[in-house]
Amino acid sequence: MKNIVDILARTPLFGGLPDDQLQAIRAIAVTRRFAKGEIVFFEGQPGSGFYVVMSGRIKIFKVSAEGKEQILHIFGPGEPFGEVPVFSGKPFPATAEAIEKSQLLFFPKRAFVDLTSATPSLALNMLAVLSLRLRQFTVQIENLSLKEVPGRLASYLIYLAAEQAAADTVELTISKGQLASLLGTIPETLSRMMAKMAAIGLIEVAGRTIRLLDRGALEDLARTGKLIGTDG
Amino acid sequence: MKNIVDILARTPLFGGLPDDQLQAIRAIAVTRRFAKGEIVFFEGQPGSGFYVVMSGRIKIFKVSAEGKEQILHIFGPGEPFGEVPVFSGKPFPATAEAIEKSQLLFFPKRAFVDLTSATPSLALNMLAVLSLRLRQFTVQIENLSLKEVPGRLASYLIYLAAEQAAADTVELTISKGQLASLLGTIPETLSRMMAKMAAIGLIEVAGRTIRLLDRGALEDLARTGKLIGTDG
Repeated sequence: MKNIVDILARTPLFGGLPDDQLQAIRAIAVTRRFAKGEIVFFEGQPGSGFYVVMSGRIKIFKVSAEGKEQILHIFGPGEPFGEVPVFSGKPFPATAEAIEKSQLLFFPKRAFVDLTSATPSLALNMLAVLSLRLRQFTVQIENLSLKEVPGRLASYLIYLAAEQAAADTVELTISKGQLASLLGTIPETLSRMMAKMAAIGLIEVAGRTIRLLDRGALEDLARTGKLIGTDG
Repeated sequence: MKNIVDILARTPLFGGLPDDQLQAIRAIAVTRRFAKGEIVFFEGQPGSGFYVVMSGRIKIFKVSAEGKEQILHIFGPGEPFGEVPVFSGKPFPATAEAIEKSQLLFFPKRAFVDLTSATPSLALNMLAVLSLRLRQFTVQIENLSLKEVPGRLASYLIYLAAEQAAADTVELTISKGQLASLLGTIPETLSRMMAKMAAIGLIEVAGRTIRLLDRGALEDLARTGKLIGTDG
């Protein structure tokens, strides 16, 4: 078993916190062991605390009305789980089961809330950690999205034009958040891509109305996926 | 100008907060207007507060010793910036300049810290918001990574075997975090991919030592990028 503070320092929740705060968090953690197949918590139970996996693997799943199991996540060493419902004061939205013999760190909600109240900079530092990571992930998603999303967006606009029997102006019928998810990216990246496509004269965006300025170039983009000035 | 609370509700920092907390955050916000080319803050200045873009566009950049400008981010409507240094108590690590006429909401650090101290559930709710978004982004990166990363990982392992003149056992000479970044993904996704490749009998992982169990299949994977059971 590695040093617990070392493991905490590498989790997305706590990585980058000063050492004294890592020690304080370590002090409220309780080690819990689970056999293969044992349930950690059930969907609907109050979120009494959250977990970090030390060893083993935890499956998070829901069971449909027809009894079908849907796996939402599988978490391994260093990964936290259950913290979203615990922080937001909601019951666990899914069931957690150990799919291997697992050792977990349990952080009781009461102790964690007391700790953040007593040490206001802890919550701020955790917000900094998560904000920074979110920003890094946004860049990562943008880099990964650049290969396919512009082509998919062009295809979608051409499809909309056909569906709306419009020559060059289409109306988005879904929100930008929904469109981002449909294209396999996030709203921030979609906005930047649309700004880029506008900057090179492919489209003009006014709220949910999009003018297709260069139909030929959009069709090329839909076919090849290459956005001039981005990939080529 | 849209309703400020509506805009706050759609930023990654505050989206999903209860309405009374959005109102409380709105109450400490100050509107600031910047002309095109105007500096919002300089690198090295103390982080006196953070911003959310209402309209316009903000460039975040550093200037190298040789005077070369490196753009780190460009933020547009709805996006927060400056919050990481402000939350972590550090000076601004880069300079922010309005590249269009811009309207920003400014959140003074002092008022924000007082608000989170007076309302402990605000910081917890913000942690829940950021955690949830981080989890969604992790899934997104995993989905985007599945197309290319297994092939790149297989190529890298084959390259390592040649470099280390090893028949079937290689030693990772960089950390998993560095390897993830080299392959264009994040550590969580890399771990899951390695677990999957181990589960289908391609490799065996023990710390930094990786045994290549099926060299032929790894070479196929490196060539085609198709991980059996993942893509096909």
